[in-house]
Amino acid sequence: MFAVGSGGKHLEDEIRALGGEILGVEIKKFPDGEKYVRVLGSLDGEGVTVVQSTFAPQDEHLVELILLADALREAGAKRLRAVVPYLAYSRQDRVTKDGEPVSVRAVLRTIGLYYDELYVFDLHNPGTLGFFPGKAVNLSPAGVMADYFGEKLGEGVILAPDKGALGRARAVAERLGLEYSHFHKTRISPTEVRMEPVDVDVRGRNVLIVDDIISTGGTMIRAANLLREMGAGKIFVAATHGVFAEGAIERVSRAVDELAVTNTIPTPVSRISVVPEMVRL
Amino acid sequence: MFAVGSGGKHLEDEIRALGGEILGVEIKKFPDGEKYVRVLGSLDGEGVTVVQSTFAPQDEHLVELILLADALREAGAKRLRAVVPYLAYSRQDRVTKDGEPVSVRAVLRTIGLYYDELYVFDLHNPGTLGFFPGKAVNLSPAGVMADYFGEKLGEGVILAPDKGALGRARAVAERLGLEYSHFHKTRISPTEVRMEPVDVDVRGRNVLIVDDIISTGGTMIRAANLLREMGAGKIFVAATHGVFAEGAIERVSRAVDELAVTNTIPTPVSRISVVPEMVRL
Repeated sequence: MFAVGSGGKHLEDEIRALGGEILGVEIKKFPDGEKYVRVLGSLDGEGVTVVQSTFAPQDEHLVELILLADALREAGAKRLRAVVPYLAYSRQDRVTKDGEPVSVRAVLRTIGLYYDELYVFDLHNPGTLGFFPGKAVNLSPAGVMADYFGEKLGEGVILAPDKGALGRARAVAERLGLEYSHFHKTRISPTEVRMEPVDVDVRGRNVLIVDDIISTGGTMIRAANLLREMGAGKIFVAATHGVFAEGAIERVSRAVDELAVTNTIPTPVSRISVVPEMVRL
Repeated sequence: MFAVGSGGKHLEDEIRALGGEILGVEIKKFPDGEKYVRVLGSLDGEGVTVVQSTFAPQDEHLVELILLADALREAGAKRLRAVVPYLAYSRQDRVTKDGEPVSVRAVLRTIGLYYDELYVFDLHNPGTLGFFPGKAVNLSPAGVMADYFGEKLGEGVILAPDKGALGRARAVAERLGLEYSHFHKTRISPTEVRMEPVDVDVRGRNVLIVDDIISTGGTMIRAANLLREMGAGKIFVAATHGVFAEGAIERVSRAVDELAVTNTIPTPVSRISVVPEMVRL
């Protein structure tokens, strides 16, 4: 049985269409800004899966996730599972300057106060799931990305924007039986980076570049321009989480043949649904 | 040693003026809406007191409180004390309809993840402090209210807007050696309530009405109008937390001789400072 917060509202119809039973939830804001949540139906068993993505307003979505859990415990839920397709603060995963927090640790510990299990998609640093006190699973969008881009790609090649992201490209490529590689970045001045795809011939071939998060899209645009110069066929860009900065969707879209992200965050280009991965949990 | 979040910024100068040592803190928001916090100085001992009131935007202030704690633990703090002058969600303190959370419980448990001690002011339902896992103290603003209104009141009387709030009026009255009582409310129709002060003669005497929270101010205005009709002298209104609805400050101010609240929430009428109570902790 699913309960959907306001950060999962855009997934609700599809969860229902794929057979997920949805518990009614009322969510509103008091005039002073406090959230009010209420579970409307009655539980049909001991476990509930709360779906709440934590894109902006991140902190409101996080607090709502905790309030929903408190309400569900109060209503008798014994096991609570959180599905947080996009986990806020996931990029604040280490102390880079003295005095910083490991913000994602604080978030994971807070979710762990109420939830027994946590499912996220394509976490920026999967190692941080160790901060969650219960069972925590990092789900892969590779299957749904492969389904979406398979036909369009044909005999194309899949590229990661850097070596660290190679596993992501490989996961999609293996599902489609395609070649994969990554770009190599060389910093040639403080403001200039040279990129080149490693050990792969892109001439005349369609290319899909895969990443976890797109924000400004600068890397993707540079990569696409380079592939174009090298004579690639169609150029596609996919990412799990579309944390787009102002204007980024338009800029990336102009530079490539198609930009598509998943619906962990609702955006105008969230054409790849992760819901099939959620309902089979 | 104090560290001050953005919900305590308005108190920082006075904390310093009263001898509190303040640790530098950097707080900003990333373009995607995530908060970034960083502790800048170095700890001079093992304990830090974080001052963060959680008025709107409540959820951001709450998350910041947790992020600051994570950073302070990372920097080596052994004991963490949270001073949360206004505690968000404090009025959501019970289940009134099936399916509701006890939201203040969720908030107190979350703060308890990181903080050993919690200090709040004039909590709506002090019993809820039992949800905090460590030491939790409900501080009284009676002393600073008595200091502020003592001379203005003269031989006046102190009134609570209802019987439940009588203790608040008594605490201020006892400090000033004044008489105190409360209003009695009778609901005479779904939209009309009759109020009358119990066992006290207000004719020709100054009156201070004391409450914990003012939001719309409707009760205060009704009480003030009634006192005016009964021939009271000057009419003052004090509250701990000014959670004012749009226009409430102006409406209440027009109905009374002076409206003043404490600075647990910064408002144009936050003339009574709780900082003296904080620095002596």
